[in-house]
Amino acid sequence: MQPSSIKTVKGGVTAAQGFTASGVYAGIKKVHKPDLALVVSETAGPIAGVFTNNRVVAAPVILDRLHLRHGVGQAILVNSGNANACTGKPGMAAAREMAQLTARALGIDTHRVFVCSTGVIGQPLPIERIRAALPTAMAKLRGTGGRAAAQAILTTDLRPKETALRSRFGGVTITVGGMAKGSGMIHPDMATMLAFVTTDATIEQPTLQQALRQAVNQSFNCISVDGDTSTNDTVLCLANGRAGGPPLRPGSVELAAFQRMLDQVCRELALSICRDGEGVTKVVKIAVTHAHSPSDARRVARTVATSNLVKTALFGEDANWGRIMGAAGRAGAAIDPNKVGVWFDRAQIVHEGVGLGPAAEKAITKVIRRKEFTITIDLGQGNAEAHVWTTDLSYDYVRINASYRS
Amino acid sequence: MQPSSIKTVKGGVTAAQGFTASGVYAGIKKVHKPDLALVVSETAGPIAGVFTNNRVVAAPVILDRLHLRHGVGQAILVNSGNANACTGKPGMAAAREMAQLTARALGIDTHRVFVCSTGVIGQPLPIERIRAALPTAMAKLRGTGGRAAAQAILTTDLRPKETALRSRFGGVTITVGGMAKGSGMIHPDMATMLAFVTTDATIEQPTLQQALRQAVNQSFNCISVDGDTSTNDTVLCLANGRAGGPPLRPGSVELAAFQRMLDQVCRELALSICRDGEGVTKVVKIAVTHAHSPSDARRVARTVATSNLVKTALFGEDANWGRIMGAAGRAGAAIDPNKVGVWFDRAQIVHEGVGLGPAAEKAITKVIRRKEFTITIDLGQGNAEAHVWTTDLSYDYVRINASYRS
Repeated sequence: MQPSSIKTVKGGVTAAQGFTASGVYAGIKKVHKPDLALVVSETAGPIAGVFTNNRVVAAPVILDRLHLRHGVGQAILVNSGNANACTGKPGMAAAREMAQLTARALGIDTHRVFVCSTGVIGQPLPIERIRAALPTAMAKLRGTGGRAAAQAILTTDLRPKETALRSRFGGVTITVGGMAKGSGMIHPDMATMLAFVTTDATIEQPTLQQALRQAVNQSFNCISVDGDTSTNDTVLCLANGRAGGPPLRPGSVELAAFQRMLDQVCRELALSICRDGEGVTKVVKIAVTHAHSPSDARRVARTVATSNLVKTALFGEDANWGRIMGAAGRAGAAIDPNKVGVWFDRAQIVHEGVGLGPAAEKAITKVIRRKEFTITIDLGQGNAEAHVWTTDLSYDYVRINASYRS
Repeated sequence: MQPSSIKTVKGGVTAAQGFTASGVYAGIKKVHKPDLALVVSETAGPIAGVFTNNRVVAAPVILDRLHLRHGVGQAILVNSGNANACTGKPGMAAAREMAQLTARALGIDTHRVFVCSTGVIGQPLPIERIRAALPTAMAKLRGTGGRAAAQAILTTDLRPKETALRSRFGGVTITVGGMAKGSGMIHPDMATMLAFVTTDATIEQPTLQQALRQAVNQSFNCISVDGDTSTNDTVLCLANGRAGGPPLRPGSVELAAFQRMLDQVCRELALSICRDGEGVTKVVKIAVTHAHSPSDARRVARTVATSNLVKTALFGEDANWGRIMGAAGRAGAAIDPNKVGVWFDRAQIVHEGVGLGPAAEKAITKVIRRKEFTITIDLGQGNAEAHVWTTDLSYDYVRINASYRS
């Protein structure tokens, strides 16, 4: 059976059947903006999670990893304004209480509740404010509450980030929706990135976990670069099976269709994070082709994408391709400069390691004025490739990050 | 015999006996500022060199590596305003011509001339302007020309960087002087760093090479971080033996005294580069102690030092130590967060991975207002340590780098 086309729908994390959400102000942020989000499924279902690789891990991440061993979820409680990281035993107790309070309010097991925090590191989490605000968050749960929840998880983000897709296959209509926060998308120091995906698909936990891992590798990991994760980064995917039908089987056409939807939701959320990055004026894809090995391709893509000199040149719309060559050269990959070609979209500027002169410079200067484009670095050696999305480095990036806590 | 104390003297690369230098405007820079420096020793002598690790290497670096096989030097010609990198065969011919023109003017072998270039990558080097200006550079050679040469090697630097030390040991008076350029001291994208050290010490080439390598590891490599070198980075040390006396022998007290002088000259030049970094308002030493291994110590020091979030917090004088913990955690080192301590100078802010509260925050907020201070990260695991000097990330960094070529 051929899966039907994929449609974009509204609703974010409440687009799929059987999900409600809310966002309220608990008083954790200094400014009066929503800072507590709750997402609840009518019924429990398999949940998958991908967490930070950082050795310094926030309390909610430690707790979620424990809860994930059961593999079943029903609610997600998120606060912004405080990361609950480097907070010791009191921080762990606070994370546990967030889960317990929610479980009690819903009448479910504590391990079905997942909690996340994002904001300043090292400050005690004011759990009493969450305790006081939770009844309001419960009362405001709506099937149209996705946007309110997407607002409440933000920190320095400029805009809420949500997306949802719907498709019909295997005899049932399946929706995958998500929301994300993250505006520190400035390599190599990603500030906390959180993403929550809900779906009414029927799927078993191991299959869901594998599908989420694959989707994350092609989306959030292409903006965050392996290992450059903060203390709190978390992606959760909760599936409640409300769409009906038999579980999506590994190797089936139906699972492949679901994977495509999940990939696209994650990619769109990841790109929204890039576009909304702190002080970002451009989103640029760094594509490395014909590398000797996948790790060489990733190293070059990552080194160019994280180069402050490349990023400031993008901001200044200065087609300073020498900085790209310089960054590629120090990536630690086995490259031969004399085989390297560089393109800005379809305009070539470097051939066999040498610049192509004024006419080519003029052509790439046109491209660099675009808001989104691709820089392709062809290493001319093998068949491996990799890509990373990056952003420019602007005055506003410095302004926002120099005064984040003030 | 006890070496006498070390005195600071004037003169930079011409402080040692038997050296002359000049700096002139050849028309390579768009603005009318000196862009051609010449340093000449009366007699040939052993020369040592340390070059970039970048895979993309500028033409002058390729040439100098060939000349260094002979191990003998007498003159160094440096142009600023054009890096002569990614310029293909014409670039290589231009570098060779720079050496040939100088050799002919001095009546010496071409391989005794070392050439360096710094500036924009990928533009043809206007060799005809160097050809036209060289006679003036020759005519202006003076025993007091160190400062003029130090001016002529600059690009975006704000100030010339030179230093010289003198000491008497082993029956002779020895001077070590140097100049440097580099203001891209913003990890991980060091723009070109050049340093030239001259000395009248009597020393054999292998001993000099080893001494220079050691001095560079403790100075320039602590600001540039291994592997993060540009296409042109070069450190050269020329010794003409004019001080007299027998060669400094490996293992001798005299060589140790010379090494101390060379270390100090390199450290002072490296710190001048930091202090004069693009848009730098602070120079901060990141010291990692009690690491499990030297590579763990280096990884943590480097990751914290290169974190844009840490660097913008330094600029904002925001004692956001959570960003330090976050960066340490993602360094790829085997750290245990519960053993980590963090100090700003002598004020402790983190004990066993947890923040010490408002009074400690107040104390470190005082320290962060200083222009120079040390952040110590005690991993509480082993006996290895490492340090890296870093700088803040300011509006001016973005401004200068966004418009470098305009």
